[in-house]
Amino acid sequence: MTNEAKKVRVAILGASGYTGAELLRLLLRHPMVRIVALSADRRAGESIESVFPHLGGFGLPQLVTHDQVDWNGVDVVFCGLPHGTTQEIIARLPRHLKIIDLSADFRLTDLDSYNKWYGHPHRAPELQREAVYGLTEFKRAEVREARLVANPGCYPTSAQLPLVPLLKQGLIDEEAIIIDAKSGVSGAGRAAKESSLYTEVTEGIHPYSIASHRHGPEIEQELSAAVGRDVQVNFTAHLMPMSRGILSSIYVKMSNGHSVEDLRAALNRQFHDETFVRVLPQGQAPATRHVRGSNNCLIGVFADRLPGRAIVFSVIDNLVKGASGQAVQNMNVMLGLPEATGLEQAALFP
Amino acid sequence: MTNEAKKVRVAILGASGYTGAELLRLLLRHPMVRIVALSADRRAGESIESVFPHLGGFGLPQLVTHDQVDWNGVDVVFCGLPHGTTQEIIARLPRHLKIIDLSADFRLTDLDSYNKWYGHPHRAPELQREAVYGLTEFKRAEVREARLVANPGCYPTSAQLPLVPLLKQGLIDEEAIIIDAKSGVSGAGRAAKESSLYTEVTEGIHPYSIASHRHGPEIEQELSAAVGRDVQVNFTAHLMPMSRGILSSIYVKMSNGHSVEDLRAALNRQFHDETFVRVLPQGQAPATRHVRGSNNCLIGVFADRLPGRAIVFSVIDNLVKGASGQAVQNMNVMLGLPEATGLEQAALFP
Amino acid sequence: MTNEAKKVRVAILGASGYTGAELLRLLLRHPMVRIVALSADRRAGESIESVFPHLGGFGLPQLVTHDQVDWNGVDVVFCGLPHGTTQEIIARLPRHLKIIDLSADFRLTDLDSYNKWYGHPHRAPELQREAVYGLTEFKRAEVREARLVANPGCYPTSAQLPLVPLLKQGLIDEEAIIIDAKSGVSGAGRAAKESSLYTEVTEGIHPYSIASHRHGPEIEQELSAAVGRDVQVNFTAHLMPMSRGILSSIYVKMSNGHSVEDLRAALNRQFHDETFVRVLPQGQAPATRHVRGSNNCLIGVFADRLPGRAIVFSVIDNLVKGASGQAVQNMNVMLGLPEATGLEQAALFP
Amino acid sequence: MTNEAKKVRVAILGASGYTGAELLRLLLRHPMVRIVALSADRRAGESIESVFPHLGGFGLPQLVTHDQVDWNGVDVVFCGLPHGTTQEIIARLPRHLKIIDLSADFRLTDLDSYNKWYGHPHRAPELQREAVYGLTEFKRAEVREARLVANPGCYPTSAQLPLVPLLKQGLIDEEAIIIDAKSGVSGAGRAAKESSLYTEVTEGIHPYSIASHRHGPEIEQELSAAVGRDVQVNFTAHLMPMSRGILSSIYVKMSNGHSVEDLRAALNRQFHDETFVRVLPQGQAPATRHVRGSNNCLIGVFADRLPGRAIVFSVIDNLVKGASGQAVQNMNVMLGLPEATGLEQAALFP
Repeated sequence: MTNEAKKVRVAILGASGYTGAELLRLLLRHPMVRIVALSADRRAGESIESVFPHLGGFGLPQLVTHDQVDWNGVDVVFCGLPHGTTQEIIARLPRHLKIIDLSADFRLTDLDSYNKWYGHPHRAPELQREAVYGLTEFKRAEVREARLVANPGCYPTSAQLPLVPLLKQGLIDEEAIIIDAKSGVSGAGRAAKESSLYTEVTEGIHPYSIASHRHGPEIEQELSAAVGRDVQVNFTAHLMPMSRGILSSIYVKMSNGHSVEDLRAALNRQFHDETFVRVLPQGQAPATRHVRGSNNCLIGVFADRLPGRAIVFSVIDNLVKGASGQAVQNMNVMLGLPEATGLEQAALFP
Repeated sequence: MTNEAKKVRVAILGASGYTGAELLRLLLRHPMVRIVALSADRRAGESIESVFPHLGGFGLPQLVTHDQVDWNGVDVVFCGLPHGTTQEIIARLPRHLKIIDLSADFRLTDLDSYNKWYGHPHRAPELQREAVYGLTEFKRAEVREARLVANPGCYPTSAQLPLVPLLKQGLIDEEAIIIDAKSGVSGAGRAAKESSLYTEVTEGIHPYSIASHRHGPEIEQELSAAVGRDVQVNFTAHLMPMSRGILSSIYVKMSNGHSVEDLRAALNRQFHDETFVRVLPQGQAPATRHVRGSNNCLIGVFADRLPGRAIVFSVIDNLVKGASGQAVQNMNVMLGLPEATGLEQAALFP
Repeated sequence: MTNEAKKVRVAILGASGYTGAELLRLLLRHPMVRIVALSADRRAGESIESVFPHLGGFGLPQLVTHDQVDWNGVDVVFCGLPHGTTQEIIARLPRHLKIIDLSADFRLTDLDSYNKWYGHPHRAPELQREAVYGLTEFKRAEVREARLVANPGCYPTSAQLPLVPLLKQGLIDEEAIIIDAKSGVSGAGRAAKESSLYTEVTEGIHPYSIASHRHGPEIEQELSAAVGRDVQVNFTAHLMPMSRGILSSIYVKMSNGHSVEDLRAALNRQFHDETFVRVLPQGQAPATRHVRGSNNCLIGVFADRLPGRAIVFSVIDNLVKGASGQAVQNMNVMLGLPEATGLEQAALFP
Repeated sequence: MTNEAKKVRVAILGASGYTGAELLRLLLRHPMVRIVALSADRRAGESIESVFPHLGGFGLPQLVTHDQVDWNGVDVVFCGLPHGTTQEIIARLPRHLKIIDLSADFRLTDLDSYNKWYGHPHRAPELQREAVYGLTEFKRAEVREARLVANPGCYPTSAQLPLVPLLKQGLIDEEAIIIDAKSGVSGAGRAAKESSLYTEVTEGIHPYSIASHRHGPEIEQELSAAVGRDVQVNFTAHLMPMSRGILSSIYVKMSNGHSVEDLRAALNRQFHDETFVRVLPQGQAPATRHVRGSNNCLIGVFADRLPGRAIVFSVIDNLVKGASGQAVQNMNVMLGLPEATGLEQAALFP
């Protein structure tokens, strides 16, 4: 057991949402972490158990308001607040804190783009300039030095992990990349909405936010940065009956006579030493249920029947690698801890 | 009530599978039909209620073997037998029968292609030449004259309904059509397979038969016939946790400067007088649960963010418009009955 | 086809809820009904298709406010409004209307009991005296003469169908009847509530409103009326991941040396001529999925291993026999139509 | 990190089933365990990843036949084989092994009862006499000394945890205890059976093995042992759409004027120092999803509306506390390790 005095003291803002609960599930098993504060303005004064009964019995601190947190006793803060509410809160936090923001507030580097997609001018533009986009596998060096990490969106994580290396190495065309993504319902959060009711979701599927989903520009920003030119993609999100999981089925054109084996080999090289990204052998298709509850991303590469084209499948748990797990991974990097600490558990199946 | 003597006498071969059960559900409400024989070799001697308790209380005939059916008392036969077993059975049936085959046995007109995709030479090639591919909305004239109708596959139905008119009218490119399809589990039938277990399917999604699904060549055959040239498509099937339903998300390139409005208008013209196909107004996305239990196909057309491209969504119930409902629709056409007879009911939602 | 002029003109108040949608699904197939008005105060001005896309294409009237309905053109009104809001609205309706109320507002005959369980004094006590509790199989004579029918609750319907005859005939003890009921989520309506979210319901089960569910007193009222003495029961509700369906597992003590065969025989006699209630043969257990979408109730009777005790299982679709289907059945009785009109369809399985 | 040489060497027989997979998930996080052999006769020669893709990447040994295991290098063996096949295999194992059997083969101490319920005479009666029934919370002393532990059934675990202390302390009547249990589908294992298909299970519930489930006599054996007299109970199992979880709703009569508060207090005293059993405060109902993936049992006690009666709810994850988790817990006790080692993780929700 780690000496309690040496443990990192962690606060979670917005602990009453699903990403907050998932942070708790993971951090409770993190040997170097002590959870010292949990905020949730509307549930302040309640125990976490009354909000999340599955987290009872662990001796977690009571929920408080954001303002009640004593920042002197905190080293790292995770922000799991709704989009748009985070900027001003983070701007007021003391500078000694390491901050990992799970909202979309600091993901888009272009302030005009932020304004366009989120409907209001950015409220903390200087902070935005400081923020590091934390897709860990590609940004370790920057994350290590960062004070503020913008944790990537769930869809963007699943799409970028295979696409960034393939684009960077010139293996696929930048034109007409099609990302058909299927997501579980927890991505919509715990807010009471008709569209998230059991009866509206079970036993069916439908596309939503077609050609207008906010994760589209986030994906494009990072793919463009990877190749140094503007890349525009099709990103189409579908809502389906599962609590957790994202499958991105990505349709690409190979460039310069490259083959599917080239693509798979390149991804294998890229991720060979990674703990959390696994490229499956030929013929094996990834399934979301094989990463449920884990921080893993599984990638499969297949030949299309259309000549010169390939299909790349990528699966993650949207609450883990797509949110809280990657946030813990980023914390580990920021603190110089082994990157997989607290994230080693296998998926829950069945 | 229709005079019993005037009713069409129907037999169902393979009544113990899901398409058989669905035929019964629909035909029990068909005012011009009398069900006179139900076969299921392995369950012969049992009541239909013991196989499908939800069909108890309707006074249906007991299950018999295929050989026990008295064909003199039958006018129309539906074949719901597994692929590959149907050819020889149908070849032996008396010529006075109208036959609607729900298996894949007579769908592929090219015998070499059949051999390649189904792994054995066709066992009734003359019958194959006689068979009419029964996607009703496009083949009414032929179905009306047919003795043997090959009822289309579920995926091909959902893909062809929007694609055939768009291709025929030259509104989209033949190249690089991408069909990302998501299906419910009943498409796999009632056979006891590990991959169809509740625990293996719930709360997850995965692609399967990638670039090798037998419905690929079926789609290509019909799209090629529509334009008079070979068309090759990407067709990628996914299995997801719902009993019924298929969503095809189809990514296309518009040709000759056409717009999304042109596509929607063309589909509206095509299907304006159809009972079962509805093109949704701009901005409205189809959902599989809105066609559950009905013979409807809903189609939505959306602009892609990629210039010059469109996304077409199409939903059906795989057991109704994708199988038994279309089979009844074909029977109505073959018999000169109003095409919607027995198929008017609204979807079951929630 | 029925002459349009002879059809019954129906209005539905509260058409934007699940019971409203289900009334529409059923009434659209009712040969003697014309739907002339649909109200939904908050959605007035919209088409029903924008609220329930699965009901598009049927030419249904636009949604209006309750006040906008022209009652001169209406013969029958179904009230699908939330509990507590119905009394004053119904009290203002013209006397020529036949009214079937699907809320709980007129189910409890004792006004004190109503006050206790619903938290406010009854707002239309004279109407309450006029209302007939419409569990059709037991109340046909009264329903036939009624102007206002209080349509029973879903749980009470599933419990009373087997219990009333068994109690009336003295086959089971009145003491310690235990009703363990499992319900789908549509019983909670379409209101956006955290507890009804997909993520909160899927892949789990829990009891709720333990010993305090409002359907408890409703069941007790009717069982007491059946035997002429106060009967108190255990009624325990559980919420589980299905959209539709209720299973009541009822644990009883047989009286006077009666056997399970006696119980089954008594229920068989009781329901022998009923269209919608079926007593299953020995050894066959009912399943909710066998009544999905149908107006049926299936009942199974089993010996307990505890001597002298029996277990009675009863399943219904909570939105059909437990709400809208029974409402249509009551309408048929009130109008002198064949009772099963519009309700003949088989269950949807799988 | 523990010195590898000091780790306990574990073999799993029957590693290709769900309890095998769950043992692996848990043991992979157990700091004192090294997994040295995995058997699965029909899948011998394959990697575990080809059987359970979610367990890939952990460097686990390849699957072998039972006979191929080198027992000299093994300290502890878990048996996850189907009922009836285990007795002869275990009888042949060397005596130095600690054995935890997850099948039902050694649970019933009465050999006649075994013969009656399992349909054949016991094939290893001497071993049966040696076996300890391992409901850990009640049998620590015996388990500590045991060489062969019969791991309890899932339903019996959920029922006994609250019932044994209540009966032992004379707080409830032995007569007419009613256990209405609802289970997820993984309890039926990974065998391909029609009744376990997604389409047959989703969106519904039904009772099964009514008054004839093999877990009935197991429960009765242990309750009888607790009070020293024959206790007979009603135990009714229901199958519902969830992969994991059991909820037992237990209806009891309180004895000698005891109150619900007495019952709750007694359970609190009993389990106060336990890691895995938690008695919820008044008014809080347990839900299966709050123990998913954890070794916890949550218990809630409620007053019945029927005077003198109480309702006790108990939830577990059938694959963890109901199988593999309790097996690991027993191993820890047998080896003198801290009982919660490898079992500390919180439940996975949502």
